[in-house]
Amino acid sequence: MNIDMIEAAARRMSGHVRRTPLLNAPLLDRAIGRRIFVKAECLQITGSFKARGGWSAVSALAPEARARGVIAYSSGNHAQGVAHAAARHGAPCVILMPSDAPQVKIANTRAYGAEVVLYDRSTEDRDAIGARIAADRGLTLIKPYDDPQVIAGQGTVGLELAEQAAEVGVAEAPVFVCCGGGGLSSGIALALEARAPGLRVHTAEPLGFEDMARSLASGRRERNPAPSGSICDAILTPSPGELTLPILSRLAGPGAVISDDQALQAMALAFTHLRIVLEPGGAAALAAALFGDDLPGTVIAVATGGNVDPATFAAALDRFA
Amino acid sequence: MNIDMIEAAARRMSGHVRRTPLLNAPLLDRAIGRRIFVKAECLQITGSFKARGGWSAVSALAPEARARGVIAYSSGNHAQGVAHAAARHGAPCVILMPSDAPQVKIANTRAYGAEVVLYDRSTEDRDAIGARIAADRGLTLIKPYDDPQVIAGQGTVGLELAEQAAEVGVAEAPVFVCCGGGGLSSGIALALEARAPGLRVHTAEPLGFEDMARSLASGRRERNPAPSGSICDAILTPSPGELTLPILSRLAGPGAVISDDQALQAMALAFTHLRIVLEPGGAAALAAALFGDDLPGTVIAVATGGNVDPATFAAALDRFA
Repeated sequence: MNIDMIEAAARRMSGHVRRTPLLNAPLLDRAIGRRIFVKAECLQITGSFKARGGWSAVSALAPEARARGVIAYSSGNHAQGVAHAAARHGAPCVILMPSDAPQVKIANTRAYGAEVVLYDRSTEDRDAIGARIAADRGLTLIKPYDDPQVIAGQGTVGLELAEQAAEVGVAEAPVFVCCGGGGLSSGIALALEARAPGLRVHTAEPLGFEDMARSLASGRRERNPAPSGSICDAILTPSPGELTLPILSRLAGPGAVISDDQALQAMALAFTHLRIVLEPGGAAALAAALFGDDLPGTVIAVATGGNVDPATFAAALDRFA
Repeated sequence: MNIDMIEAAARRMSGHVRRTPLLNAPLLDRAIGRRIFVKAECLQITGSFKARGGWSAVSALAPEARARGVIAYSSGNHAQGVAHAAARHGAPCVILMPSDAPQVKIANTRAYGAEVVLYDRSTEDRDAIGARIAADRGLTLIKPYDDPQVIAGQGTVGLELAEQAAEVGVAEAPVFVCCGGGGLSSGIALALEARAPGLRVHTAEPLGFEDMARSLASGRRERNPAPSGSICDAILTPSPGELTLPILSRLAGPGAVISDDQALQAMALAFTHLRIVLEPGGAAALAAALFGDDLPGTVIAVATGGNVDPATFAAALDRFA
């Protein structure tokens, strides 16, 4: 993994994946007492940064492998990112989703052009089903974060951020990044190491699911005690990736931890001041930037996704806007 | 009024006013059956395109006039645009607002650094009060649309749009623009005439307040029968501007008319597919692009503002998302 891979990914995705804006709001800065810049990946083509990793991985395949197709396991943003990239490359795409996934997610994944295969979470083994389909049809598995080309794709956020921070005169600041398995955080950290070494990544995770923060502290891959239980569903991975933790141990941290209510409050403030739609897991980094202790006068947050159901969003507004 | 004034305004606002993205969403295009590109001015620094006209007008003042200060009449987006520009130029700024304006709008305008002067709508004459304050203190009145430098500032949206449409390969398309007095529409029309003549402006207004559509049809300044009564409050001006109508008669139309429910539905679709926050008046053009008859395969909408109260937004989601 190095900056050359990230720059190659950026070249492959040029014209296909959106350069998202770095937003700020005078009244938000005034209310919080520091300058807060937000990299709005919720405005990415599929509503999250996952469009980058998906594009990077699919576009990096050899032509024969691409023609056979790809497979991914996801009920969320990774599914949409991979499905979008595969469709635009004319590559067959299978997405394996639990049969109890929300209908809208299944419908959206199909609308992006993927074949959705459903499995029963309680009686069937996802990995076994996926392995069988992949073997039968010669599909390449696109992992959500522990894949070099996926990390390289997510790292293009860091390339853009380095340029955009320079444009607003920011050379030193913490960069909070919503963190599940660490693909985005590690990609950004690699890009910033090369292009803006004064910007340092800090992962942001919900309380009780701070496996990355604990892993950065201990130096080994810690696991979360429970698989679910936070509203930040998009970033509840069980433990850091094998590829991502070494990168982040070298370049990032300490990790920030936020509460579910802080994520909802960040969604409400993003609605009011930035006029963007964030999902809870996509607002974790902004929550860390808003509510963290002992922060400097300028901070950056990567707002990673905006695929949220209307009821959850309305509830956040009702409580905090 | 000409393209040189718009380009000069763009140079004055460079680095101070945001270049907003042109967004699109594959699933929205698929659902509606045409390609829809959205110029997201809700992401502008004060939450609406009015930051451009405000900046253009304040920055165009002679240094002595700027030092004396500016005044504007507005309880909404124009107030925030002028207040923001004045504060950044170190110019005193008075905003005249009705005393029954929402507290949050009064507070926000003050937070941008303006002095808010309240008047009683039922017993006091706004224009007389404003004229007296302006004369006493030597303030320059910044009108919301019938001012050449304001029109030039709003026209910078058209300069960006011409470039961004070319980037996505669009040379011919209708461009729907939310329309009150016509400052934004006429500025964009002038810019597109010079830079992208295949893109034609169509104003978008709520039913019952389609003074511009009727004026474009009749060739003279028609008035709306009522001063209020649509949820699209930001664009309920009584009649077209004296400067704006001749420009639009030459370059734009016919005007589109949308219903309040279509504006709310456009807000919900923008939430789901574009992850942006629109106010009802800021969604009128998107509504026209979504629900208009006999439209070509590619259309553009300028989403003009996102300063909406949470209850109105939540109600739109509840009904249409």
